[in-house]
Amino acid sequence: MIDTGSSDGETAGDTPAGGAARPGRRVTISDLARRLDISKASVSYALNGRSGVSEETRRRVLELAEELGFHPNSAAVALSASRTRTIGIVIARDPALISTEAFYMRTLVGIEQYLNEVDSSLLLRLTGEHGEDLDVLRRWSRQGRVDGFILFDEHHEDPRIPLLKELGVPSVVVSSNAPADGVGRLISSPEETVALLLDHLVELGHRDIAHVSGPFHFVHEKLRVQLLQEHAVRRGIRVRHHEGSYRYEDGAEITRQVLTDGDRPTALVLGNDLMAVAALRVATELGTVVPDELSIVAWDDSPLCELARPGITAVDQQTMQRGRAAADLLFRIAAGDPQLHVEAPGGVLRTRESSARAPY
Amino acid sequence: MIDTGSSDGETAGDTPAGGAARPGRRVTISDLARRLDISKASVSYALNGRSGVSEETRRRVLELAEELGFHPNSAAVALSASRTRTIGIVIARDPALISTEAFYMRTLVGIEQYLNEVDSSLLLRLTGEHGEDLDVLRRWSRQGRVDGFILFDEHHEDPRIPLLKELGVPSVVVSSNAPADGVGRLISSPEETVALLLDHLVELGHRDIAHVSGPFHFVHEKLRVQLLQEHAVRRGIRVRHHEGSYRYEDGAEITRQVLTDGDRPTALVLGNDLMAVAALRVATELGTVVPDELSIVAWDDSPLCELARPGITAVDQQTMQRGRAAADLLFRIAAGDPQLHVEAPGGVLRTRESSARAPY
Repeated sequence: MIDTGSSDGETAGDTPAGGAARPGRRVTISDLARRLDISKASVSYALNGRSGVSEETRRRVLELAEELGFHPNSAAVALSASRTRTIGIVIARDPALISTEAFYMRTLVGIEQYLNEVDSSLLLRLTGEHGEDLDVLRRWSRQGRVDGFILFDEHHEDPRIPLLKELGVPSVVVSSNAPADGVGRLISSPEETVALLLDHLVELGHRDIAHVSGPFHFVHEKLRVQLLQEHAVRRGIRVRHHEGSYRYEDGAEITRQVLTDGDRPTALVLGNDLMAVAALRVATELGTVVPDELSIVAWDDSPLCELARPGITAVDQQTMQRGRAAADLLFRIAAGDPQLHVEAPGGVLRTRESSARAPY
Repeated sequence: MIDTGSSDGETAGDTPAGGAARPGRRVTISDLARRLDISKASVSYALNGRSGVSEETRRRVLELAEELGFHPNSAAVALSASRTRTIGIVIARDPALISTEAFYMRTLVGIEQYLNEVDSSLLLRLTGEHGEDLDVLRRWSRQGRVDGFILFDEHHEDPRIPLLKELGVPSVVVSSNAPADGVGRLISSPEETVALLLDHLVELGHRDIAHVSGPFHFVHEKLRVQLLQEHAVRRGIRVRHHEGSYRYEDGAEITRQVLTDGDRPTALVLGNDLMAVAALRVATELGTVVPDELSIVAWDDSPLCELARPGITAVDQQTMQRGRAAADLLFRIAAGDPQLHVEAPGGVLRTRESSARAPY
């Protein structure tokens, strides 16, 4: 099996061993597909001698591949070592929350895009929040049902990490920090995102910001708080932190508290799209004009932010590309690549109408 | 393995053979979980003698099950016949569209909830729109990787139906019509929804309605058009149909055409949430006040409809429950149940600010 593990404009090239690495640029399956105006899967089928494309198409693909100097990347090696052509994902969160959070669906879609290109599948389980996820990880691993796992939502002292090391099954944590503990991690530079956010707000004159986070037991939320705090001190501004749950109701309640308190901030940063929409709604109800009197920024972009009025400024975490990168890393690790940490694509600030000059 | 295949307030009871059936009410795993204040999965673990719950919890579950007269339903039989404890879903749509449409994620979450309760898994593949889905169905089936399939988006003369019959693998189509062709179908009474929608609009005085559908090659969209037309004739009102694509851009463009045409309708019905938000946006841009001058109704509810301003009246298709019902039906069919058609939970109209009395 041959593939590249790359989305348009981004490719998984060779990376220096030992440190985090960003991919470089080379000819990918996407390039071949675009040039021939056929699907990436068709290119993949043609390259791998599988059915599903005509002989004419196969010939055109092989000719163009040779002409452009296309070479399969290490995912091809990984796949040849793959027993099951399947990776596992077990998500332990309230299913109702998952269905309203674009983050999961977009990351899963990115993973699926990659898997489809390398003709592999996803075994998926949503277990709810009662610890059954450990049981599922253990059984799938022992039954040899998957070649490895992608993990979401790393907790402080997460019991999944020692379990997976004990089971000896390759795994990648879609995470924001990177302890060197023998497990693959997609590192997502929250520091870069924090700098992006604060640059934006400080440039607009904001010096008093409230941050409504997700639950602190998630490693990435704790890290965001810590980094926001460090940067605030360095810039001489104030950032106050409130622990939220990612739920709309919670975003609404905390915003209400923050805005009816005597000492109001001029900007609110919210940990996800739902809480940001809630904040916008509550501010409007309380007669606080967004963005004239209050700026609102969301940590994760989605159609909700895009379609709100005013549109909500948000960090696009490039979740689909993150999903792709996580799947690619997992296949490499499964093939014995010693490189366990890879940098995720950086966040991009989508500036919309909800953020403007501070009122004072 | 013991389970009920039921969500709160809805249960999969015995059904008369031969026709479509709606479930009745009896004691479910949900009831046990609620009474004991533990998760449904824990109840399932306790009933099945699996690890993951304490002996104390197991004892309490078994006592309450006996006290309330809990009996496992036919899904238990199905599961005992299951070889893989896995069902397959292959979706052939543009992944980017899937990631923005709540419909898929919510249906998948409903399916996953059910699967988790019966300790089974989902093998998932998103293939894009180039026909590779047939190849995946064929291979998973021949390799014995799944006990059956749930299919979305039935097309006119859909090649998946004869393929799955040929392969002899149990399958359920999440569909709105019901030919008796030997494949399982979750029947979703579009007639009921059409009646709901038109009752609502006609009561408000609307007699000239525009309908922006999804693509006509989807069976359920064609059926909606046909039923809307029949009901319009019966009620003596006018409904004009425009074929859309479910995409925001398309909803916007068609709305612009409809509203700048000389002969404007007083109400717009749009085939999904994204197109409804687009219609609201375009109407506002054109200076058409919603709902005073134009009512807007969406065929599928989501947070986008709920959080739009004005909030968009929408048919809640109860997608999570539909997902559960589809998974339950598949397990029954896999166990040899001759009952191939089951009615999906009916749609519910969520009336919000976007629909009001017709202006004339």
